[in-house]
Amino acid sequence: MKFLCEKGKLQEAISIVQKAITGKSPMPILEGILINAKGSTLTLIASDIDLSIETKIESEVMEEGILVVDAKIFGEIIRKLPSSKITIETKENNIINIHCEKSDFDLVHMNGDDFPGIPIIDEDMVFSIPQGTLKNMIKGTSFAVAQDETRPILTGVLFEVKNRELSLVALDGYRLALRNELIDTDNNINTVIPGKTLNEVYKILEDSEEIVNITFTQNHILFNLGSTKIISRLLEGEFIKYESIIPHEYKLKVEVNRAELLGCIERASLMAKEGNSNLIKFDIQPDTLIITSNSQLGKVKEEANAKLQGETLQIAFNSKYLIDVLKIMDDEDIVMELTSSISPCIIKNKDSQNCQYLVLPVRLVK
Amino acid sequence: MKFLCEKGKLQEAISIVQKAITGKSPMPILEGILINAKGSTLTLIASDIDLSIETKIESEVMEEGILVVDAKIFGEIIRKLPSSKITIETKENNIINIHCEKSDFDLVHMNGDDFPGIPIIDEDMVFSIPQGTLKNMIKGTSFAVAQDETRPILTGVLFEVKNRELSLVALDGYRLALRNELIDTDNNINTVIPGKTLNEVYKILEDSEEIVNITFTQNHILFNLGSTKIISRLLEGEFIKYESIIPHEYKLKVEVNRAELLGCIERASLMAKEGNSNLIKFDIQPDTLIITSNSQLGKVKEEANAKLQGETLQIAFNSKYLIDVLKIMDDEDIVMELTSSISPCIIKNKDSQNCQYLVLPVRLVK
Repeated sequence: MKFLCEKGKLQEAISIVQKAITGKSPMPILEGILINAKGSTLTLIASDIDLSIETKIESEVMEEGILVVDAKIFGEIIRKLPSSKITIETKENNIINIHCEKSDFDLVHMNGDDFPGIPIIDEDMVFSIPQGTLKNMIKGTSFAVAQDETRPILTGVLFEVKNRELSLVALDGYRLALRNELIDTDNNINTVIPGKTLNEVYKILEDSEEIVNITFTQNHILFNLGSTKIISRLLEGEFIKYESIIPHEYKLKVEVNRAELLGCIERASLMAKEGNSNLIKFDIQPDTLIITSNSQLGKVKEEANAKLQGETLQIAFNSKYLIDVLKIMDDEDIVMELTSSISPCIIKNKDSQNCQYLVLPVRLVK
Repeated sequence: MKFLCEKGKLQEAISIVQKAITGKSPMPILEGILINAKGSTLTLIASDIDLSIETKIESEVMEEGILVVDAKIFGEIIRKLPSSKITIETKENNIINIHCEKSDFDLVHMNGDDFPGIPIIDEDMVFSIPQGTLKNMIKGTSFAVAQDETRPILTGVLFEVKNRELSLVALDGYRLALRNELIDTDNNINTVIPGKTLNEVYKILEDSEEIVNITFTQNHILFNLGSTKIISRLLEGEFIKYESIIPHEYKLKVEVNRAELLGCIERASLMAKEGNSNLIKFDIQPDTLIITSNSQLGKVKEEANAKLQGETLQIAFNSKYLIDVLKIMDDEDIVMELTSSISPCIIKNKDSQNCQYLVLPVRLVK
C-alpha cells in the first residue's frame, strides 16, 4: 500500500471515524482504524460493533492495500504533523511508514483481514432530512433516555415514522421528550436506536441544510451523509406506547418566558442540592409563578412573570428535570399544561408545535 | 449589617478571594469568605492559612458589620443572580438575606469572630514591579518546582533580590528554571514562596503594566495590587545554591527555531510514551538536529534546522522536560549550550538574557 494525501483531510477523516471507538476494547483490532486505499479514494472505517463509521477522502493511491492502525497513536501522529502532504506506505514486518516534510514515522500495523465486517445495508427504504434538523431532534430528546439498564429498551431513542411525520421519543421513569418533524416518505417505521451511539451521530452531523439519507433494516440504521456513513445497531424489543402516557387534556395552562423561568429554577436549585433531591416548589398564581426551596443551608424565593389560564396550583418538581428541558428548548416563550399536583406537567413551545416534554411532579408528604 | 452593591463587582471580588480556598477544610470557617461592611467599602477575605487574599469594593453600607458566608454557595448564588443591584442584610438566627430584583435568598452565615486573623504586615520593605512582568516570571519558573515533598524547600520558588535584580528560581532533581528582571530597590532578599500559592497569585495578577508592590517579613510575603492584597506564608529553610549548579562554560552551542524544535520533540515523544519514560535522542549535526525515538509501537525520526558551533554530539533527554521549557518560552529562536552527553544542557533565548533553563540529560546504558 502506498498513498499520498492532505494532512488536514486525513486528520478530519480520522476524527470522524474515531467517534465509533469507545476506548479500551478486549479486541485490540477494535481500537484500530481500517484504511483501504483503492482507486483515487482512501476509505477509513472504525467500529465498536454497535456503531460503525466509514468515511472517504480523496487520495493519490500509488499502490492499493488494506490495513489497520491503532486509532489513538495514528490520530495523534497525524494531528501533530505539519499542514502538508503526507505519504504513507507499507514496509516489511507489519510496519507502515508515515512521511511528511522532515518527519518520518515507522508504526506497527495490524492485519486488515482481522477487522470485523461492517453490516452490508441495502439502501432501499430511505427517507431524507436536513442534517441540522436531525441534529436538533437528537439534542432535544437523547438527554431523556434512561441511564440505568433495568429496562434496556429505554436506554434508546424511538425513531417513529407515521403519516409522513418523524418522531423521536426518549423517556425514563420521570420524564419524556418528544420531537417531531414532517418528512417526505410513505414508509412507516418504528425502531429504537441506542442513546449512546446517537450521541456520536449527533457530533458528526453538521448544523446545516445538507441532507442525510436514512435507511433501516431489521437490525440496523444507516445514516448516509455523502462521504460519511454511520451504521448503528438497533435495540431489540418494543418501545413503550408513549402516546398513552401523554395527557391530552389539562385544567390549567401557564405561559412564561423560558430564560426567566430557567434563571429562577437554577437559582432556586442552589438551595435544593444538599439532602433534598433537588426539590423545588411552584406556587402558580394568576400573574406570577413563585418558586421556593429550602434546605439546611437556608431558603430561597423566586418570582417569574406568568400568564395563568385556570385555577391556581401548588406543585413540586425535581429541578434537574425542568432545567434539562428548559436548557435545550430554543423558543422565547413556553407553555406549561397542568391538571393537579400529582399529574404530569407538559411543557411546549408557545408558538411552535414541534416538541412536547413531560415531567412528573414530586408528590409531597402532607 | 446591611449593604447594597453591584452584582458584577461582588462576583469579581468573590472570584478573587475564592482562590485562597483550596477545597474541603477540616475547619468549615476556612471554606468561608469574611465580609466586612464598613464606611463605603466592602472588604472580602478568604484564607487557607498558607495563603490569604483580601479585596475591597465600593458599596453603599447602611449598617456596618462582619460575618462569614460559605464561599461555594454564596459564590454560586451571586453568580446566578441577574446583573443588577444586590441588597444583603442580616436577619435573626444567623441568617443573611440576599435580595436582587425578584430573587430572595435566606442563607445561614457563620460568626466573623471565628475567622482566623490574617497576618498584619508592616509595608516597609517594598519593591515594585509591573503585574505583567511578575506574572510572566512566575509562569516561567513555577512549572519546575519539585512535585514530591522529600525536600519541602524545593516545592517553592526562590525570590532573590541582589544587585537590583529580581531572580525567580525553581528546580527539582532534573531541571532548573531561572527568570530575572532588573528592579529599582537597594534591598537584598532571599526567600522561598510555596509553588502552590504562587500559582494562585499568578491567576490574580493581570497581564498589564499596573504595579504590584511587594513586601517581605520573616515569615510572609505580601503582594499589594491596590484594591487586592495577597499574603503568602514563606517556606522555612534555605534554598539550594543554584548558581553552583548552572555551568558557565560549554563546548558546543546550537541555535534553533523554538516552534520547529517543539514540534519535532512533541511528535517524537508520541513514540516514547509507552514503557520508555519519554526517552528521545538528539543527534546534533552541523546544520541539523536529528531527533529519534522508538518503542514497541514503532520508531520516529525528526529533523530541525540548526546552526551548530562546536563538535557534533549525541545526547538523550526526557522529552517532557524539554517540552515544558519550550512551551513557556516566547522568543522565536533559542540557543542550547552543551558539553557532553552526561552534562547539563542550558537553554536560553537567542536574543534576550532574561531566562535560563537547565535540563539534565538521560544517561544511556551502553
